Amino acid sequence: MAALVSDSLAKKNNDKASENSTAQVIGGHGANSYSNNSSYQRLSANVVTKKIEDAIMKNLDVETLSSTSNVFRVADFGCGVGSNTISSMQDLLQIVEKKYISQCPTSSQMPEFQVIFNDQFTNDFNTLFTYLPQDKQYLVASVPGSFHNQVLPKSSLHLAHCSYSLHWLSRLPKELRDERSPAWNKGKIHYTSAPPEVLMAYATQFAEDLDDFLSARGREMVSGGMIVIVGSSIPDGMPYSQVVNGIMYDCMGSILTDMVKTGSISEADVDAFNLPIYACPPGEFIEGVERNGLFSIEVIELMNPAPWLKGPIDIPVFVKHVRAAMEGMFSNHFPSKAIDELFDHLVLKLSDISQQLESCYRDGLQLFAILKRK
Amino acid sequence: MAALVSDSLAKKNNDKASENSTAQVIGGHGANSYSNNSSYQRLSANVVTKKIEDAIMKNLDVETLSSTSNVFRVADFGCGVGSNTISSMQDLLQIVEKKYISQCPTSSQMPEFQVIFNDQFTNDFNTLFTYLPQDKQYLVASVPGSFHNQVLPKSSLHLAHCSYSLHWLSRLPKELRDERSPAWNKGKIHYTSAPPEVLMAYATQFAEDLDDFLSARGREMVSGGMIVIVGSSIPDGMPYSQVVNGIMYDCMGSILTDMVKTGSISEADVDAFNLPIYACPPGEFIEGVERNGLFSIEVIELMNPAPWLKGPIDIPVFVKHVRAAMEGMFSNHFPSKAIDELFDHLVLKLSDISQQLESCYRDGLQLFAILKRK
Repeated sequence: MAALVSDSLAKKNNDKASENSTAQVIGGHGANSYSNNSSYQRLSANVVTKKIEDAIMKNLDVETLSSTSNVFRVADFGCGVGSNTISSMQDLLQIVEKKYISQCPTSSQMPEFQVIFNDQFTNDFNTLFTYLPQDKQYLVASVPGSFHNQVLPKSSLHLAHCSYSLHWLSRLPKELRDERSPAWNKGKIHYTSAPPEVLMAYATQFAEDLDDFLSARGREMVSGGMIVIVGSSIPDGMPYSQVVNGIMYDCMGSILTDMVKTGSISEADVDAFNLPIYACPPGEFIEGVERNGLFSIEVIELMNPAPWLKGPIDIPVFVKHVRAAMEGMFSNHFPSKAIDELFDHLVLKLSDISQQLESCYRDGLQLFAILKRK
Repeated sequence: MAALVSDSLAKKNNDKASENSTAQVIGGHGANSYSNNSSYQRLSANVVTKKIEDAIMKNLDVETLSSTSNVFRVADFGCGVGSNTISSMQDLLQIVEKKYISQCPTSSQMPEFQVIFNDQFTNDFNTLFTYLPQDKQYLVASVPGSFHNQVLPKSSLHLAHCSYSLHWLSRLPKELRDERSPAWNKGKIHYTSAPPEVLMAYATQFAEDLDDFLSARGREMVSGGMIVIVGSSIPDGMPYSQVVNGIMYDCMGSILTDMVKTGSISEADVDAFNLPIYACPPGEFIEGVERNGLFSIEVIELMNPAPWLKGPIDIPVFVKHVRAAMEGMFSNHFPSKAIDELFDHLVLKLSDISQQLESCYRDGLQLFAILKRK
């Protein structure tokens, strides 16, 4: 069950929001580090590998791609610091190799493969490199910088992957920081259960970010190249308060409000704090891709991010995952003692409502999409 | 004067020797870090910039190169963690832009520029990225891995730079670790003042490494692409004991031998310890390039690495630079208390012979070469 939440929080905010210190995953190999608390992400990735294979075998024309380049480049946008990005990239390479063998059986040799890891400048690439296998059969590069901008040369990329990264907003909409705005989010830290103006501010920012992402990839990718997108979503029209993440954000807001009463933190700090996370419903996603116009949608579906997870939730483990992914966002805004208090209380509060968590909606919370550069 | 020594020690060992923990530059921004103690390297780099400009303006055919690619890639091999690599790369880009404007005045636009930073997997790329200017007008990638192997796709690179990195041997020749070999280097830590078998073991390893480096670049570079090489050298036939570095290595060996007598370290540890550093004379370099056969030599000369440095040496500052560059090599072999003792004694010992240091040979200790891919 932890995957439902921690997957969607696992990746760093690859953009200006985190450059403004609103989001930071814990690097290194420590007990609370993301790299040591991301096994659920890997499980989740396995679920989509088969779907990616189907789409690549059917739709990626490697014969045409290899006629213009001896190197096949695969990039992970918002790679983070865990070993999952390496496993995902290796899975993609295996699939592409299989497609080469299938489509070009008489070709004497494979192209060279280069795997490119992208994340923001502050990502812990040093740790990421320690996970690379010594006997790897591909070239490697890391490319720092926000994926909302062009980070690779024009027409140089053949396959892109972006897993649980797009939901991080590039910045918090300014209305959320304006006390006089109807989108001033008093006593809450997310659009869950918030006024419609708050949701609208989030959705508008996401649409702008998605357009920037697609335009940047549009420049970098060759015609016929494909993007695999996996990330947080929700069925069109469903309020976010019906899913585990939303319930948890409401709990966090409520704990922080209680902490204001005991004097641990200030009311203004809570009101001004908002998680820069948006789970885009498929309708808005399709609209954004079509408005951008550079990519066709080959596959799009909602799926259950962790269908194997059933039964009772281990709340302490669950909160440990959440903390690994989210602590940085809070610690940039609240004192460290307050963070401990928040997560300690979160364990208690979620334990009280564990039955509600277990029974809430969980089926279609993962968007899986494959786009193709026109 | 510090530049004479610390330049030639400034870069990490980009290869197996350092993967075996024989060499490590201190990363981060701390007081003893390389990035905070490398201003001399920058001065030294300025001296060669004019020579690079002359060679590029005369010999780099950007019109032909841009006919096959919209991106112009420049890579620094053995980039290290300091800001010098960024300055050097920016200098190169300015020169290449100037050549474009000069050779293709009617062309409507420049190619995209991508700057690639290469160093071994354990390099502190996180720190390096913090030095990148926010308003940079070029794309960036880091490519981890030994530059003795291919690290970039075939025929993708246009201009390469390798400054004070080639002198690091990829491994210590095994004869130096064999007590029964005539190259067992008793009481010394370098080939300076050592038996000829020791020098031969170093020279043979360097020749092999140079060939690996050239073969790897040969695969990566486009025809007509150029490599700029700057590094430690010495006039053909001159013994290394006549230059500051050599005198210092002899001092270090002698201090370590004294420390054996006081019981700080063991004799076997000193005998088995050898600095994996070789200053290749131009004759051997030319022979290596010609034997490899993939590159023509456009420019080769010996120069004074720091002609502006005259007068008395500030020994404590000088040793601080040396320590920033070399500490890792010693600390992988000797206990940390012994390292403090070594460098404290080095200040005293070099102060005693400061006149000898100031009067020794210093003119032709830097090799400057420009090679062109055939």
